Amino acid sequence: MSLAEGQREGYVPEFNVRTDLALEAREIVQERTAEEMPGVAVEQTREDGVTIHLVKVETREAAQRLGKAPGNYLTLEAPGLRQKDTDLQDRLTDILARELIKFLPLPDKLEESVLIVGLGNWNVTPDALGPKVVGDLLVTRHLKLMKHQAFQEGYRSTCALAPGVLGITGIETSEIVRALVQQVKPSLVIAIDALAAHRLERLHTTIQVADAGVNPGSGVGNNRVGINKETVGVPVVAIGVPTVVEASTIAGDTMDALVQAFKKQSRAPELVIGMEGQSWEERQMLVKSVLEPFVGRLMVTPKEIDTFIDDISLVIAAALNTALHPKVRSSEGGKYLQ
Amino acid sequence: MSLAEGQREGYVPEFNVRTDLALEAREIVQERTAEEMPGVAVEQTREDGVTIHLVKVETREAAQRLGKAPGNYLTLEAPGLRQKDTDLQDRLTDILARELIKFLPLPDKLEESVLIVGLGNWNVTPDALGPKVVGDLLVTRHLKLMKHQAFQEGYRSTCALAPGVLGITGIETSEIVRALVQQVKPSLVIAIDALAAHRLERLHTTIQVADAGVNPGSGVGNNRVGINKETVGVPVVAIGVPTVVEASTIAGDTMDALVQAFKKQSRAPELVIGMEGQSWEERQMLVKSVLEPFVGRLMVTPKEIDTFIDDISLVIAAALNTALHPKVRSSEGGKYLQ
Amino acid sequence: MSLAEGQREGYVPEFNVRTDLALEAREIVQERTAEEMPGVAVEQTREDGVTIHLVKVETREAAQRLGKAPGNYLTLEAPGLRQKDTDLQDRLTDILARELIKFLPLPDKLEESVLIVGLGNWNVTPDALGPKVVGDLLVTRHLKLMKHQAFQEGYRSTCALAPGVLGITGIETSEIVRALVQQVKPSLVIAIDALAAHRLERLHTTIQVADAGVNPGSGVGNNRVGINKETVGVPVVAIGVPTVVEASTIAGDTMDALVQAFKKQSRAPELVIGMEGQSWEERQMLVKSVLEPFVGRLMVTPKEIDTFIDDISLVIAAALNTALHPKVRSSEGGKYLQ
Amino acid sequence: MSLAEGQREGYVPEFNVRTDLALEAREIVQERTAEEMPGVAVEQTREDGVTIHLVKVETREAAQRLGKAPGNYLTLEAPGLRQKDTDLQDRLTDILARELIKFLPLPDKLEESVLIVGLGNWNVTPDALGPKVVGDLLVTRHLKLMKHQAFQEGYRSTCALAPGVLGITGIETSEIVRALVQQVKPSLVIAIDALAAHRLERLHTTIQVADAGVNPGSGVGNNRVGINKETVGVPVVAIGVPTVVEASTIAGDTMDALVQAFKKQSRAPELVIGMEGQSWEERQMLVKSVLEPFVGRLMVTPKEIDTFIDDISLVIAAALNTALHPKVRSSEGGKYLQ
Repeated sequence: MSLAEGQREGYVPEFNVRTDLALEAREIVQERTAEEMPGVAVEQTREDGVTIHLVKVETREAAQRLGKAPGNYLTLEAPGLRQKDTDLQDRLTDILARELIKFLPLPDKLEESVLIVGLGNWNVTPDALGPKVVGDLLVTRHLKLMKHQAFQEGYRSTCALAPGVLGITGIETSEIVRALVQQVKPSLVIAIDALAAHRLERLHTTIQVADAGVNPGSGVGNNRVGINKETVGVPVVAIGVPTVVEASTIAGDTMDALVQAFKKQSRAPELVIGMEGQSWEERQMLVKSVLEPFVGRLMVTPKEIDTFIDDISLVIAAALNTALHPKVRSSEGGKYLQ
Repeated sequence: MSLAEGQREGYVPEFNVRTDLALEAREIVQERTAEEMPGVAVEQTREDGVTIHLVKVETREAAQRLGKAPGNYLTLEAPGLRQKDTDLQDRLTDILARELIKFLPLPDKLEESVLIVGLGNWNVTPDALGPKVVGDLLVTRHLKLMKHQAFQEGYRSTCALAPGVLGITGIETSEIVRALVQQVKPSLVIAIDALAAHRLERLHTTIQVADAGVNPGSGVGNNRVGINKETVGVPVVAIGVPTVVEASTIAGDTMDALVQAFKKQSRAPELVIGMEGQSWEERQMLVKSVLEPFVGRLMVTPKEIDTFIDDISLVIAAALNTALHPKVRSSEGGKYLQ
Repeated sequence: MSLAEGQREGYVPEFNVRTDLALEAREIVQERTAEEMPGVAVEQTREDGVTIHLVKVETREAAQRLGKAPGNYLTLEAPGLRQKDTDLQDRLTDILARELIKFLPLPDKLEESVLIVGLGNWNVTPDALGPKVVGDLLVTRHLKLMKHQAFQEGYRSTCALAPGVLGITGIETSEIVRALVQQVKPSLVIAIDALAAHRLERLHTTIQVADAGVNPGSGVGNNRVGINKETVGVPVVAIGVPTVVEASTIAGDTMDALVQAFKKQSRAPELVIGMEGQSWEERQMLVKSVLEPFVGRLMVTPKEIDTFIDDISLVIAAALNTALHPKVRSSEGGKYLQ
Repeated sequence: MSLAEGQREGYVPEFNVRTDLALEAREIVQERTAEEMPGVAVEQTREDGVTIHLVKVETREAAQRLGKAPGNYLTLEAPGLRQKDTDLQDRLTDILARELIKFLPLPDKLEESVLIVGLGNWNVTPDALGPKVVGDLLVTRHLKLMKHQAFQEGYRSTCALAPGVLGITGIETSEIVRALVQQVKPSLVIAIDALAAHRLERLHTTIQVADAGVNPGSGVGNNRVGINKETVGVPVVAIGVPTVVEASTIAGDTMDALVQAFKKQSRAPELVIGMEGQSWEERQMLVKSVLEPFVGRLMVTPKEIDTFIDDISLVIAAALNTALHPKVRSSEGGKYLQ
């Protein structure tokens, strides 16, 4: 998420709502327009405390309305994770591994490399997801190149980097990834990143897998380059978990809640009309006045964030190890893997 | 602040505003009642980009209105810190050292110990202030007891602990401090803690020194024990820096800003009346609905929090080393120390 | 081990050999005297790649020869751990849990507390074992005191602290533990610590559980106070893993190896005689000359130490969680637990 | 040093002595051959507790005997650093900055980038030097590219990366650096690395700056690629600090000390003859027998390593910031900079 820089926007432009989740972007458009949105297909299944959504953004027009690149967005929701539930963590790991095996465009040959990039800043708790996952991965490229006996069969060639954020490196992460891709020539890049959600209940309970890669918003002033097939030259799948909500979301939601409350009570009809007629600029001015001097660079996180991040990092790392290496897969044999 | 537990309330009860700063609590009462508050004396001086406030809470009644224990609250504000200004950091260090020398009830004999306790959780960036300061302190008690040549003269006996939070230890921090005080018998305890502010502009730019120790709020459900002379048996001075604003503050501020905006434009007079007549319970219900499922356990932090915390920790540790040890003082000789 | 201080001696005095393992101390005495040592009983069993030794130091005389307090020393050896073997880690966890259930003097009532203390310094990789284990423990004392529904049955009251080393706190760890014991009144203290071994092959592959607590050597100049029933007032069980070998051990071993080599080849008979007749003081002078300017404060560690420490910390934490809490035990049901 | 991998050999081949310092390599050759070594020029100056050596390896033959690539090796020795001396640290910082300004082939234009690479593993204390230095650098490339007002004048374009070691990334660090050089096109690479010394007294008190870059030894089995002008395409200056001695050095030194001791006492003349006639293979076998099962992967470090590493990292980072950015230089104005 490169929290330290605050530029991976991910806005639903129509309603000026900040979210990196395609699922939420669609929810917001549907709720606020109260009609089915064209160009987006959705499938949903449920099993054992986990809801699996597949959102397909099929047209460029839909992509623009959602503020999300065209592509497939797989989302796993497990609200129970907020209550330290180790059984649910194990189940989610198995389900994510199974879905990744189907979703990732893995090369047939185990000798073709997969490069996993952990985005974000390990010194800022909510932004440390990527570096933490990278720290728990089984990395084999060097062992396979050195002809290490134990890793010739059953293990895919994997390599990884957690480069840190622009403020520490002075180099755009997309530049670093492009450089590495040209050197290492992987068949696939997997980018792990902390995300921003719109709804608080999605924090630390939701995993999004996107075959469009990492695509910063196209809003004014956003010149950050994405990490995707266009910019790095090979397919990029992004895996992300919302770990923050922007403070401006809280401010906006408060205004909406106020209007709803007054509406319900048929109180202050002028307000309701006034607010509903309020221009985007007026709203922004209000939010800005509340959040000064930090507008756009404030994040909201739960206080238990450290254990949430540790737990979900382990889920993603274990699922990736299982999905990428056939030998890990066979030695686990969990029932959710079939 | 024991962020992970969310119970060090520090509310201004009258207006249900969350702040650990006495300075802000008084500001809020004065602003909202539009009259001078009795029982509180305030002095203010300014030098080189730093404003020094001394708030004296003199009566029990004032203490109750402010939600702050009776005592003296020294506050240093240096808004320039947000722009990485190393000269200002050096000046602030010198000024804080000078003020601490005046403020701390230091024993005359260097052999009497001072115990510094770093509160908070080193795994959560905004709560790591206390442990970070402790890591940068000059600790001498063992060297003086061992009759180490170099530390006999010019160095006070200092010892320190960063015990971690209740969720990790299972023991109230006040219990740990009381136990240590009985064992080590220091003449003074200094508790370092991350705080919550009401105003975003105070984040990472403000240092509060309080001779009343650490005193959690007295709200319903708050059974956390304070760290103060009553609970641990010796004077406790608390040094804190606001590193978070509660998310409910953002929500409340948004409602207020909305009312002000409509008032100014003479729009929606019913709203203005409605909101101003809105009961505390109604407001709380609204805020709660916005912040679910995390009410009261959400914090707002700027994205650059890691460097802010590192910088201000160094300021406090260096000022403490200077204030506590005459030898460090003489070797520095900064002009702000006179 | 309080590596930063270098005073937990643990020498076999007769042969001036540094080891914290009772098993090794006995080996050394038996090997070098070539006769059975009185006052020490030993049992040994083997299962699935793990050797379990029980060394009982039964007389004061034996204790003095071994440089180990009288008591029972349970040692688990799993040399396979050096080859990242996750199956073996799981087995070792189960076996350790089972043995701890038998070995620990656990109170019958789950309401009586157990205090776990992680000794050592989290900033020095080989000394970070204790703090790391504490970070992975299930701590419940506060939840039970708060009458948290989920923790009333099946969970023992546990609390924990990783106080850091003398150089950071200025307070002897034994003082901190004694203070906490008086405050919290646990029925049992478990102290986790990194140890020094004599033989390199024991690094990171061996776990010692000792019912005598932590007992620094009684050599000249060692005034460190132990953490045991005498000093803290309740039974103390120490759990340790050798993570370093002292550099002086390497120097001493080299001299011995040289003598053996020449002996075997019937070369330099004068050397063999000379060395075997060499006084303790002569040997020490030689070792000292090699290790200057760091004598006695140098440690030898394998380069892969970070992953070794992570792995064995998890083994100990998981085994403790299982041994201490009946509910964790029943939900695991591993075959090694019966 | 990539400690985790143990392959950056740096041996003086003739005497099988492990050191990464050119200064020590020359010392060893001179001492053991007792004659002046051709092809190496040495200059030495002394000021205020710091000795500055310049070793010029001028011929290929000398390079081979020393196990060091041809080039200039600047070495600063400050033995006083072992006694926490902050004045000496400040002086050393100023002297290093001044020497770097003379030594580094800095481009005239501040717009040409310098890439600083922190080698090593932040999870292993003695190998964390590189990552720690990178964390304290002033990085400006992105600010200059974004036309940030404050960084247009007086600041050089700097960027940095701490990629981690082969075992974590699966990619040779030289590959990562080459890839970045092709992308970022810096005029100079500075590689920061932890080194191995031969003499314990050099640990943490010595800084080597080498214009030949990072050049692993050419011993059998060493296929690690260097980081130098040949492999990455632009000049590479390496800055290193010895943080470990190999355990085999301790073993070898012990044998030598034994021989010297017997020689002095005219004891065991057969030993002296035997040892001096001992073949390299015999010695190696002995050392190997002592260090099993870890031969070649054991390191010796002082117990206070964490504070040593912190202190010397700050010295290097501060000196680099001063040397690279004219504006930092002018604002310091220390007398050692003239």
